[in-house]
Amino acid sequence: MNALTDPNLNVAADPAAPIDFEARLQRSREPLPASSKAYIAGQLHPELRVPQRAIALSNGEVVTVYDASGPYTDPAAGIDVHQGLPAPRAAWVEARGDTEAYTGREIKLVDDGLREEAQQRLLHEMSVGLRRQPRRAVAGANVTQMHYARKGIITPEMEFVAIRENQRHEWMREYEADAEREQRLAGNPFGASIPKIITPEFVRAEIARGRAIIPANINHTELEPMAIGRNFLVKVNANIGNSAVSSSIEEEVEKLVWSTRWGADTVMDLSTGRNIHTTRDWIVRNSPVPIGTVPIYQALEKVGGVAEDLNWALFRDTLIEQAEQGVDYFTIHAGVRLPFIPMTVKRRTGIVSRGGSILAKWCISHHRENFLYTHFEEICEIMKAYDVSFSLGDGLRPGSLSDANDEAQFAELRTLGELTQIAWKHDVQTMIEGPGHVPMHMIQANMTEQLKHCDEAPFYTLGPLTTDIAPGYDHITSGIGAAMIGWFGCAMLCYVTPKEHLGLPDRDDVKAGLMAYKIAAHAADIAKGHPGARARDDALSKARFEFRWSDQFNLGLDPDTAREFHDETLPKDSAKVAHFCSMCGPKFCSMKITQDVRDYAKDLAADSTQGQVQEAGMRAKSAEFKAQGGELYIPISKA
Amino acid sequence: MNALTDPNLNVAADPAAPIDFEARLQRSREPLPASSKAYIAGQLHPELRVPQRAIALSNGEVVTVYDASGPYTDPAAGIDVHQGLPAPRAAWVEARGDTEAYTGREIKLVDDGLREEAQQRLLHEMSVGLRRQPRRAVAGANVTQMHYARKGIITPEMEFVAIRENQRHEWMREYEADAEREQRLAGNPFGASIPKIITPEFVRAEIARGRAIIPANINHTELEPMAIGRNFLVKVNANIGNSAVSSSIEEEVEKLVWSTRWGADTVMDLSTGRNIHTTRDWIVRNSPVPIGTVPIYQALEKVGGVAEDLNWALFRDTLIEQAEQGVDYFTIHAGVRLPFIPMTVKRRTGIVSRGGSILAKWCISHHRENFLYTHFEEICEIMKAYDVSFSLGDGLRPGSLSDANDEAQFAELRTLGELTQIAWKHDVQTMIEGPGHVPMHMIQANMTEQLKHCDEAPFYTLGPLTTDIAPGYDHITSGIGAAMIGWFGCAMLCYVTPKEHLGLPDRDDVKAGLMAYKIAAHAADIAKGHPGARARDDALSKARFEFRWSDQFNLGLDPDTAREFHDETLPKDSAKVAHFCSMCGPKFCSMKITQDVRDYAKDLAADSTQGQVQEAGMRAKSAEFKAQGGELYIPISKA
Repeated sequence: MNALTDPNLNVAADPAAPIDFEARLQRSREPLPASSKAYIAGQLHPELRVPQRAIALSNGEVVTVYDASGPYTDPAAGIDVHQGLPAPRAAWVEARGDTEAYTGREIKLVDDGLREEAQQRLLHEMSVGLRRQPRRAVAGANVTQMHYARKGIITPEMEFVAIRENQRHEWMREYEADAEREQRLAGNPFGASIPKIITPEFVRAEIARGRAIIPANINHTELEPMAIGRNFLVKVNANIGNSAVSSSIEEEVEKLVWSTRWGADTVMDLSTGRNIHTTRDWIVRNSPVPIGTVPIYQALEKVGGVAEDLNWALFRDTLIEQAEQGVDYFTIHAGVRLPFIPMTVKRRTGIVSRGGSILAKWCISHHRENFLYTHFEEICEIMKAYDVSFSLGDGLRPGSLSDANDEAQFAELRTLGELTQIAWKHDVQTMIEGPGHVPMHMIQANMTEQLKHCDEAPFYTLGPLTTDIAPGYDHITSGIGAAMIGWFGCAMLCYVTPKEHLGLPDRDDVKAGLMAYKIAAHAADIAKGHPGARARDDALSKARFEFRWSDQFNLGLDPDTAREFHDETLPKDSAKVAHFCSMCGPKFCSMKITQDVRDYAKDLAADSTQGQVQEAGMRAKSAEFKAQGGELYIPISKA
Repeated sequence: MNALTDPNLNVAADPAAPIDFEARLQRSREPLPASSKAYIAGQLHPELRVPQRAIALSNGEVVTVYDASGPYTDPAAGIDVHQGLPAPRAAWVEARGDTEAYTGREIKLVDDGLREEAQQRLLHEMSVGLRRQPRRAVAGANVTQMHYARKGIITPEMEFVAIRENQRHEWMREYEADAEREQRLAGNPFGASIPKIITPEFVRAEIARGRAIIPANINHTELEPMAIGRNFLVKVNANIGNSAVSSSIEEEVEKLVWSTRWGADTVMDLSTGRNIHTTRDWIVRNSPVPIGTVPIYQALEKVGGVAEDLNWALFRDTLIEQAEQGVDYFTIHAGVRLPFIPMTVKRRTGIVSRGGSILAKWCISHHRENFLYTHFEEICEIMKAYDVSFSLGDGLRPGSLSDANDEAQFAELRTLGELTQIAWKHDVQTMIEGPGHVPMHMIQANMTEQLKHCDEAPFYTLGPLTTDIAPGYDHITSGIGAAMIGWFGCAMLCYVTPKEHLGLPDRDDVKAGLMAYKIAAHAADIAKGHPGARARDDALSKARFEFRWSDQFNLGLDPDTAREFHDETLPKDSAKVAHFCSMCGPKFCSMKITQDVRDYAKDLAADSTQGQVQEAGMRAKSAEFKAQGGELYIPISKA
């Protein structure tokens, strides 16, 4: 179904007919197979309810995994997207006593790209259940998690993160019990330092140091807090948002729910079309994950697309507008500096960042330094009043292998390092965006340069793509680079979908991009030696080896697809206990054959001395094996 | 369409109704867009016709790329799969004067798993155009490419390979002209040594050294020769073949053509079901690429699936049967040795290789050493009489992250190293198979161990998979590992499809696996600094930057999908010259905006001294830009 052509999904055409949306939302809400929501209480803050997903296996084991999907996949939770999610954080924010509710800025027609008050009324009626009164820091206060951390305070958000990151690790113990195996598989963290158990104090220390952030605007009270940092699980961001050419408000909310279902840890709303303000209300009020934006997009819409007409006052007003709504992090391209623009002239693909190209145009037109750079400390003052985190934009990232690691890219990176120090002076949480398109052999240099210049602020890359020759498959070209840079220390990976370079992604693309990136992030966790990361792989492999097919599917990132692929050629329920699949059939299944020899090999291992097999014992075992029928097949009727 | 249920595709059900097959073959034969077949003549051997694919761009450039698809995509070639492809190699083989035609071994009922002569007659009638008289070495002769290479002879096969590997490099020069760029992007070959121009003498030297192979059975005269080696382009293998549960002969031929269309450099026929011998005739006679097999599968079928009943005489007979048909390489699990089997007892997933588990069962049942190991030199005698290459099997590869790089795996690798030396004593071309499932941080050790123990014989891995948690997406979990190990020196990557661990792949899966693996191989070539590898990426990026949409699609690995994805949201022809796509729309397209600023930035670069921007020049440029309208949009009506 095409959002452009389906009137039921285009709110502006028919606001009273969301039937298909509701149906899709219901499907997105079904818990994943064999899964239930488990909530863990806090100890320092007993009111916390930290979500995990518990997967029940057929052999009685319960495997717990990290869960970003929020209340949507909790059948006990009442969901009404017109009212927004429950807001447990509101109490924590208010309890700190350093914020005040206030009227908030007046919503203008231009915020939604409208011309008529009638249109605005329509949007308001649709959204009335989602409007909230904003809060901000009281005069002189700084309300960022970094500020609290540096004062030695462990906030409820920090404890929430600690509990979440541990993933109820007890179940993993069984898979880590073999010392020889653990030593053989010990990871290479490239300088990261991840403790076996994450404590609230550890979280506080990492936030204070700037090595991690908890993006958590005081106005995003529906948020389930999470952390981004080298010493935590590698995270994944999904992008949603409309463009002038496609999509509707309800479509965007549904993409949000769909994204978190499949594991997006944060979501960026990159809307550049109509109804930007209202779309964002719908998204933030209904989001259990942090929401990021690129404020320059909306600012550009407000000046009718004329980059030269951008100005600080308008941009400042847009920052406040979005901060009041609860946006958790802003991409700010303050490193696109006037003297760097000539460095892009020889590039194969110039400036590929939307925000970067817009700012570059502004600089060139006014022959002035980037106003985001010159007004940076004023931006910090806004950020610290709401606890919006910086995502310092890589406006000069390379958009082709040809341009990788060039002068323009690293000049910007060095500026981002300087700006990080200024942000930290204000205790504003900060992460650094990164490339792009980078061949494999040049990826590690990106990580080492970023660590060096940005003092270990979290790195947040887009891929990188490791080759340019596969439009239609850029989730894979970039998944390779993302896995590698995640291993080297990148804290969050911004996904790329199959539609990259070609068009706006639909739901299938969003899922495909997420699968590639959850794979990359998890492969990175394992290579880093993140304690317990490999346990899920072990549980799945054990299920595979024991022919517990449903457990194998249910432990995977996408149980639906795994089951569907298996059933294409062996659909009967009996096949779910079959000791083979259609790849090899019953006679050739290596796992089945291995089971047959295992017991006898075990005895050999017991008998053997330094690998020498004892003849007599062998012969006896051989006779025994044959006497028992030495059966290799399971006739299909028994399966 | 399901091969199981469609009687038209199941030859045994209805041999006279191949209509759907013909239609599919025709579709697979269409040249890729804007592409034509170019043939390059030899110099030492003027009769050579070395195929390349020439892609014509809209700006007059012609980009030449490596082409594995054979005569199928040449509209001028007459194709009749009942007769087989033309056989130019026959003349080269005969000219060497060291082989003789002979009657060949009698084809038995058991070769096709049949019980009745009537069934065999049916198969024969269907295949009569494909039967050939086999050749073998005359008494005392050795007909391997390695033997000729070591005698200092440059064969037509070697020259063919040299021309093919160069990809008519002249067109790449434009993209390598910038010395600063080339230095910045210089690859890291980890000890590989790839000359700028591949000469026939270089090929000879690599074959003689054993660092590369040209799999080219003297009976596979339809072959377009190719090389596998660290100092050549990284290659990709696709697997086809039926199983007891699925598929038909014509389906397998169609998978072959489909595989080579999408870039498979070799194809393995892993059939384990019915009609194995006849299926293989159809495949080899119609294959422009080398065909590999695992002879133990057919041998097991011949003994009714009872591993214990395998024996050397039967296996030897099977090797000759398959060599006579023209199979180019055999996977031989001679490293699955009796003393190693107990090392697998503690494994998470035991022995996952079909061949490995079969041999392990045989060893345990007979309490004897693996007969492939004990009879290895006799196998060499057969290989050298037909020039079949060894693919020394990794029967003890790890099938889960848990088992990676364990004692069993490396014990087998060391044995494969010993066997390589024996093979080379006989001048038998040899490559070494590798894992499997290996976390990223443990991949490089696989390469260094293999180089050390196997004296730089080419490495040929299956992935490796970098995490186990994504059944349904193992083309991606393994594409990551494959790209990395290709960079480190692996010569050929055996693809993995989305169906891995779940079932037999269909055509869509074959294509998906190939896309992931062509990406991995190419990303590896670039990271290694393979001369000219990046030129295709540069040509595509240039097309992207200049909004030559069709060129961008046509230069990609999958032009059809790229075009389809773009057209989903902007289908009109006018969109193909639009300076935007639906991702961002006309106002926000960074490439469009970059074009606007470029000219002005160019002037700045000319004026600037050490990055300092000259004020007066800036102001003048700014005025000029505004005077020209500084237009940012292209109204859609003009697009």
